[in-house]
Amino acid sequence: MNRHVRPPYIGAAYYPELWPLAEVENEIARMHELGVNCVRVGEFAWGRMEPREGEFDFAWLHEIVDKLYAGNIAVILCTPSATPPKWLTDTYPETLNVQSGGLASQFGGRCHVCKSSPVMREKNRIITRKLGEEFGKHPAVIGWQLDNEIFHYGNGCHCPLCQKRFRRWLEQKYGTIEQLNAAWGAARWSLEYDSFDSIIPPRHDTWNHPSLSAEWLHFQDDTICDYIREQAEVLRAYTKAPIGTDMMLPLELSHTQMNESLDVAQVNHYEPAADLYKTAFIYDLMRPIKDRPFWNTETQAGWNGSNFAACRFRPAGNCYVNTWMPVAMGAEMNLYWLWRAHPNGHELAHGAVLTSAGRYYHIAGEIARAAAEFKACSSFLQETRVRSKIAMHSSATAAVNFAVAPMVEGFNYRERLVDLHAAFRHCNVDLIDTAHSLDGYDTVLSPYLTTVDENGLKERVMAWVEAGGTWIVGPMADTMTDYTAKYTHAPYGFLEEFAGVYTRYQLPLETDTIRLRTSDGEEWPASVCYDAYELRGAESLAVYEGDILAGYTAIAGRRVGKGRVILVGCGLRGEDLFRLAGAVPSAEASQNVRVVARTGERREGIIALETENAAGFLRLDGRYRDLVSGEEVSGRVEIAPYAVRVFEKLAG
Amino acid sequence: MNRHVRPPYIGAAYYPELWPLAEVENEIARMHELGVNCVRVGEFAWGRMEPREGEFDFAWLHEIVDKLYAGNIAVILCTPSATPPKWLTDTYPETLNVQSGGLASQFGGRCHVCKSSPVMREKNRIITRKLGEEFGKHPAVIGWQLDNEIFHYGNGCHCPLCQKRFRRWLEQKYGTIEQLNAAWGAARWSLEYDSFDSIIPPRHDTWNHPSLSAEWLHFQDDTICDYIREQAEVLRAYTKAPIGTDMMLPLELSHTQMNESLDVAQVNHYEPAADLYKTAFIYDLMRPIKDRPFWNTETQAGWNGSNFAACRFRPAGNCYVNTWMPVAMGAEMNLYWLWRAHPNGHELAHGAVLTSAGRYYHIAGEIARAAAEFKACSSFLQETRVRSKIAMHSSATAAVNFAVAPMVEGFNYRERLVDLHAAFRHCNVDLIDTAHSLDGYDTVLSPYLTTVDENGLKERVMAWVEAGGTWIVGPMADTMTDYTAKYTHAPYGFLEEFAGVYTRYQLPLETDTIRLRTSDGEEWPASVCYDAYELRGAESLAVYEGDILAGYTAIAGRRVGKGRVILVGCGLRGEDLFRLAGAVPSAEASQNVRVVARTGERREGIIALETENAAGFLRLDGRYRDLVSGEEVSGRVEIAPYAVRVFEKLAG
Amino acid sequence: MNRHVRPPYIGAAYYPELWPLAEVENEIARMHELGVNCVRVGEFAWGRMEPREGEFDFAWLHEIVDKLYAGNIAVILCTPSATPPKWLTDTYPETLNVQSGGLASQFGGRCHVCKSSPVMREKNRIITRKLGEEFGKHPAVIGWQLDNEIFHYGNGCHCPLCQKRFRRWLEQKYGTIEQLNAAWGAARWSLEYDSFDSIIPPRHDTWNHPSLSAEWLHFQDDTICDYIREQAEVLRAYTKAPIGTDMMLPLELSHTQMNESLDVAQVNHYEPAADLYKTAFIYDLMRPIKDRPFWNTETQAGWNGSNFAACRFRPAGNCYVNTWMPVAMGAEMNLYWLWRAHPNGHELAHGAVLTSAGRYYHIAGEIARAAAEFKACSSFLQETRVRSKIAMHSSATAAVNFAVAPMVEGFNYRERLVDLHAAFRHCNVDLIDTAHSLDGYDTVLSPYLTTVDENGLKERVMAWVEAGGTWIVGPMADTMTDYTAKYTHAPYGFLEEFAGVYTRYQLPLETDTIRLRTSDGEEWPASVCYDAYELRGAESLAVYEGDILAGYTAIAGRRVGKGRVILVGCGLRGEDLFRLAGAVPSAEASQNVRVVARTGERREGIIALETENAAGFLRLDGRYRDLVSGEEVSGRVEIAPYAVRVFEKLAG
Repeated sequence: MNRHVRPPYIGAAYYPELWPLAEVENEIARMHELGVNCVRVGEFAWGRMEPREGEFDFAWLHEIVDKLYAGNIAVILCTPSATPPKWLTDTYPETLNVQSGGLASQFGGRCHVCKSSPVMREKNRIITRKLGEEFGKHPAVIGWQLDNEIFHYGNGCHCPLCQKRFRRWLEQKYGTIEQLNAAWGAARWSLEYDSFDSIIPPRHDTWNHPSLSAEWLHFQDDTICDYIREQAEVLRAYTKAPIGTDMMLPLELSHTQMNESLDVAQVNHYEPAADLYKTAFIYDLMRPIKDRPFWNTETQAGWNGSNFAACRFRPAGNCYVNTWMPVAMGAEMNLYWLWRAHPNGHELAHGAVLTSAGRYYHIAGEIARAAAEFKACSSFLQETRVRSKIAMHSSATAAVNFAVAPMVEGFNYRERLVDLHAAFRHCNVDLIDTAHSLDGYDTVLSPYLTTVDENGLKERVMAWVEAGGTWIVGPMADTMTDYTAKYTHAPYGFLEEFAGVYTRYQLPLETDTIRLRTSDGEEWPASVCYDAYELRGAESLAVYEGDILAGYTAIAGRRVGKGRVILVGCGLRGEDLFRLAGAVPSAEASQNVRVVARTGERREGIIALETENAAGFLRLDGRYRDLVSGEEVSGRVEIAPYAVRVFEKLAG
Repeated sequence: MNRHVRPPYIGAAYYPELWPLAEVENEIARMHELGVNCVRVGEFAWGRMEPREGEFDFAWLHEIVDKLYAGNIAVILCTPSATPPKWLTDTYPETLNVQSGGLASQFGGRCHVCKSSPVMREKNRIITRKLGEEFGKHPAVIGWQLDNEIFHYGNGCHCPLCQKRFRRWLEQKYGTIEQLNAAWGAARWSLEYDSFDSIIPPRHDTWNHPSLSAEWLHFQDDTICDYIREQAEVLRAYTKAPIGTDMMLPLELSHTQMNESLDVAQVNHYEPAADLYKTAFIYDLMRPIKDRPFWNTETQAGWNGSNFAACRFRPAGNCYVNTWMPVAMGAEMNLYWLWRAHPNGHELAHGAVLTSAGRYYHIAGEIARAAAEFKACSSFLQETRVRSKIAMHSSATAAVNFAVAPMVEGFNYRERLVDLHAAFRHCNVDLIDTAHSLDGYDTVLSPYLTTVDENGLKERVMAWVEAGGTWIVGPMADTMTDYTAKYTHAPYGFLEEFAGVYTRYQLPLETDTIRLRTSDGEEWPASVCYDAYELRGAESLAVYEGDILAGYTAIAGRRVGKGRVILVGCGLRGEDLFRLAGAVPSAEASQNVRVVARTGERREGIIALETENAAGFLRLDGRYRDLVSGEEVSGRVEIAPYAVRVFEKLAG
Repeated sequence: MNRHVRPPYIGAAYYPELWPLAEVENEIARMHELGVNCVRVGEFAWGRMEPREGEFDFAWLHEIVDKLYAGNIAVILCTPSATPPKWLTDTYPETLNVQSGGLASQFGGRCHVCKSSPVMREKNRIITRKLGEEFGKHPAVIGWQLDNEIFHYGNGCHCPLCQKRFRRWLEQKYGTIEQLNAAWGAARWSLEYDSFDSIIPPRHDTWNHPSLSAEWLHFQDDTICDYIREQAEVLRAYTKAPIGTDMMLPLELSHTQMNESLDVAQVNHYEPAADLYKTAFIYDLMRPIKDRPFWNTETQAGWNGSNFAACRFRPAGNCYVNTWMPVAMGAEMNLYWLWRAHPNGHELAHGAVLTSAGRYYHIAGEIARAAAEFKACSSFLQETRVRSKIAMHSSATAAVNFAVAPMVEGFNYRERLVDLHAAFRHCNVDLIDTAHSLDGYDTVLSPYLTTVDENGLKERVMAWVEAGGTWIVGPMADTMTDYTAKYTHAPYGFLEEFAGVYTRYQLPLETDTIRLRTSDGEEWPASVCYDAYELRGAESLAVYEGDILAGYTAIAGRRVGKGRVILVGCGLRGEDLFRLAGAVPSAEASQNVRVVARTGERREGIIALETENAAGFLRLDGRYRDLVSGEEVSGRVEIAPYAVRVFEKLAG
């Protein structure tokens, strides 16, 4: 490990293979100017590492990494597997990804190979092992990134091997073809399969069975998790530094499963300025995955773009807050993409820290400022953590179910969760998948959690409620198996009984004619779907109004042991869910200010981040010190547009 | 026939093969609760009927049909040909439909086979014959439905056999390749064919000749008509119950031709609540096809949807009116799709009478109410019919011509006809294709009827006018052959001479600068196209105003024998066409109320249906009895939102 | 040459092969009625000229051309190569264009063959030679048109031969594969090629390297230029009449290169009425290509359309101005598409002079009026030319660069140039490509000219500035090579040094927060991108305002020798560019009036054209004669809606 570099890390992806070797000295000097202390290297550089099959060249990379080490720049080394050189697909054309419809993908971009190909996997292990051998013990290397933004692109690989693997995968899950036919209801439309061997993956131009489409997605997920797991295993023999893979945010990807074989959650994200507040969703999702700070491996410096600069203009200060936000919320790293803009090729119009000509973009000052402040707050950030008493489920299984069967026109699971989550901007909340433990949470929210009965969650959540937890569940929760089938004995698997209701009617189409009246007399809008309950032991917390479901219960609550279950029958606004959860803000603040509470064994404090480029405020309860200015503050504090304020609580 | 069940029929599609056999008792009990007296079964169940090639199993279906009979539920039995089991395409891959471009369709949805494949046809005849043998004389079975929503999906089948059949089909129509080349104007762009054998169907990615595209559509139409005809012929040996096929509403499909070999017109339709008034178009189109009441074989119970509920929310009462409307307008049956929602598979989010869990949706009460009222009005409905003195042409040939050559940007034949038709909401009107007889009509409207010279219509309509009919024809009428060619001697085939005009200018692009001034001094808007006439024996009924065509006649009228032809040169609003036709309302009513006059040998009356969920009225001329309430009424009657009122005229 | 016909020519495309031969007499009579004196014939008629391979028939065409000659109608004869007959692709299937993805194009439209196919080329030469032999000396023929609207349709031809030619073409440009890899930055994403033989054209479904995509476009361009050059060479042996090809307006097509082997620039264009003023861009682009008047070979008579009339309604007078405008601005010909509408086939709904039935459309009167006025102004038009002191660059290389890499979201090179150009409606301006000489211009504008260092322009423009020229260059100028790579030593190739600035920041995303303050104190909006300069010898003409770049120079000017360079860092409005250029109107006029100054050795004058269908004015400085009315006019002249006025200056 690089002992001279301390977190938080700030830096960028750096592609020295594209520039004359001599440039590295200048680049390091620039990094020092800005306070940058970490770079990612090696990503995509397979061609330079192994220019011809079996011929390796790491001398150039050693020179780079040595110089970075000498310059006190921490290094994250990347496996280059996302971009195999042309010799791989020229020599082994069977490694090419096959599109739905039968056309092999064409070399020329990235991610054009089959993720299961044995030849590709072998070449992959070799280059990974070589990297491990060469750099596994290098003191500059603080961690590893595997592949790049891995996901089941397009519709997955349809090569004969993947088709065969899919059949075996289904056989393992369903046992017999009769069980699969029954589970999928294949009798309808005479779709019964004779054998697993007769199953074919869903084709893009076919009206596909949703269970088939869902399993194909789950299978893709397993394939790429296995692909990453294999790389991690190879590397572990050579390194003690943490290993991860820089993930994108499609919720259909099981971030939890992906990280089972890994050490550190890594995430890449790009959003327009107006969506800055939504990035909190990302951090609350990454933080609980591993019991250590996560890495924000990519975000835009000024803008993103491939052949054109995109995602709209960002006002001054936006880059600064975007840099601070992951670190405030639980990351120990924020890296930009990229250090110096390419002069050509794919993504030649992407924003960066430096232009192709090696000059700073205007955001350099904001980066330097964040770097300096990271340094000033370093010990506070390392000695405190973000802890939550509230968790909200974000489920890969639900995401897959909704991807193949959104159930209600226009319904988008991800957008809905992000919207609900945004209401929790003044209190810490964890976003967890179903496999995650419920220990330590007071309240768990499970909106749109189609599948409760997986990963033992059903039994665990019932016991956790019994022991005192408050579970706010629904709408659309417990309505589906993990193969996209509804229950036939009741609308829910077990929730009617557990929550003490009988579902009289179900209406899954949004309308503005139905509203809620809470037992406190408040009127709330309802959306998406409307399950109407009769009480069988529960108490009514809200009833429907309108011409169709008037008088039926929309929200039902019931004590269970020391805890409580609250069943929600319809879509709620985030602010109403917040109130239903009895959530308590970490501090009073204006809506444009995100409040993050950090606690440690001996220190605690609050970080306030303004995300809307407007004036805001925070009200501190007690005496605090501003760790950047050094001033002592208390009471109402003005938060300037795009300001970040770090307040440590003072004793007494 | 099931003697214990009397029309009108009300019920749903029922898929007992998806549920435990024992469930049928519960389902029948539910049917009785609602007043449901008819179900469709067997559709799509080929896999259960013939699980392996040549192995048949109808025991389960006998059990179901027997129990339905015992429960006094009438049965419509369906041939399952829309969903051949996997063994068909696995054993005979040549039966797969081939897409334009050459890719064979993939098993996994429905309608994936070639409609001409001899093997498929043979298997089809076998399963149809088996069904006939097993159930042809079953007293529960009141009728048959062939296949499902048959249409030329996508761009039709491009398999070698279909290509060969297309060539022979063209040869039969054109005789020699020289005549085809001449008819199509193939000299342009050097597109002449050497022989019929060198003709290839239009490919989706090619800029295709409109005549080629049109003939391909006509050929598809003939193919599916033949496909249905064959099934009907097989069944007739075994059954006396009426046979039909449940059609969708694309006007390019020749509903008249399709039904030549059938006994009862069947139709499926799904519309959002706001389009309820437009469904009248469907019923006026179906009613004249056969001289017996048609069957509304599918409509949504609550909503439709495949992987998500769609077509927007329906207020309370909408299902009730939607159920009554076909029956009021000439059907003897209204069936929903579907009885009980699937728990999985395609269309798992579709609305139904019962949820997957077997509970009623909120619309059950509306269904029960309609069922009870059907019973109360049964004899009146059976002893009266909907008869019209006005007919409007809806032509499959015109629809095909406009599909391949809309002639004016944005012009949509179907939408335009539906709009015009909507103005006739207070008087009965028939929608007829060109082959239909004109006997008994006082007035015939032929807007946008591109091709008059087919099916002998030209001669028939001239004689009919001579004998006293009023023909309101145009715009765009008589402008094309049935192979999408314009005339070259005049803008119209014969209309100039027949109507006594000379067309001075033609302007086929909508503009708001041109309006009409009628001979009564009224100003009417004009749209779509503007043919400007000089009089050659006609009188001017309206002239154009505006900078280009000012003063030329837009609407010309001429006495011919005892009748009259009115030639319309431009697009009119429905209300203006209504006035031009001198149409007389069956009763005065508000615009939101549809008025249907029913007459029989001894009884007559009026049905009023409110379609906009708003208050309306009807003014009765004479004394009537409300057949539901039993009250006697006369004069102005208030029609509540979404109300249906059946008034029988009292003697004296 | 047809001695009896004098320019300006007015007429249409005429397809006598589609009509009975006897019709030609009637058609000529109609032409005389309107004053039409020129038609294009032969286009697309390969099938009639060579109905079977090697069997030629020109008798019919001789009869037509002879009769046209006798009728004093000038003829432009077309090669029919855009529509090879079916025998070509049936006999030689390898001549079919192959789409990206591997599917061969289908016969049935046009342009379905590979432009490099040796067999096709041979057949092409043969039919071209035959045409030359038959009609090369015919006195009716005043010129030739090769092929039709040639362009690299779709994604070009991917047949094995084209792939091979592409590889050799790249080898010729780059020399070694190492140089190509370096130029493209192929190390990124491990995209290095081993050899030219391993390069594959960009496929539509691949995320392609922009340099690969750009070179593929350049290669297509070279291919079609060679294709046209070959036809021209064949014809030259037989004719002295000018040869051209009727081009469309995609700026990616190198109109300059295309015309190197040709005699007369020909152009086709179709615009909605509201875009009439934009057609000036076309004429200013065509005029400088050859030192002789260009030909407007196609424009709509009433509307354009394929299967439906489109491009919206045109008010009375629009056709008249559209006819005059090219002739006023430097053409000697305006032809419509087409003379008489087809009754069938592709484009059956297109506007024409005559309907399919041979009757005039309403625009006939406007055509006759323009024809009569052309005659009245003929000598003035022939004895004067449109000469410009200002040139604006429109570069095919820049267009290709922006096509593959627009650099800023939503940026459209063509739209931007057309917008800027529109501000120059009151003064003559030439639109030139980079190969064009700068001699004779006072001012050259080079907005968005990505690539200055090609065709010797860099050296020529520096010398021309030194000698006294004013060069207004930028934004985005000199930023890229012709293989879509940015510079790495500086943002520009040489402009910093030449203009005396240092670029402090670059911001390529449009925002409304940044504006300019000129040194005169005016506030100008800025757009697209923002390069912010520090002065290194230049003077500041405008600085940025706003929160990010405030105070930096946006426009810098510097004296160089006797001339001046003005570097523009951001997008400007046309009106601001006009002022920056110090452009002087040829006459004061309202914004809706286009002013064209024409000068000759002994005569000069001004043509005013009203393009917005609104009242306008022109102020004449001196005494003029209206060449249509014969009146003498001076001072302020009212210009009626859609009026064209031709004023010749009177001596003294």
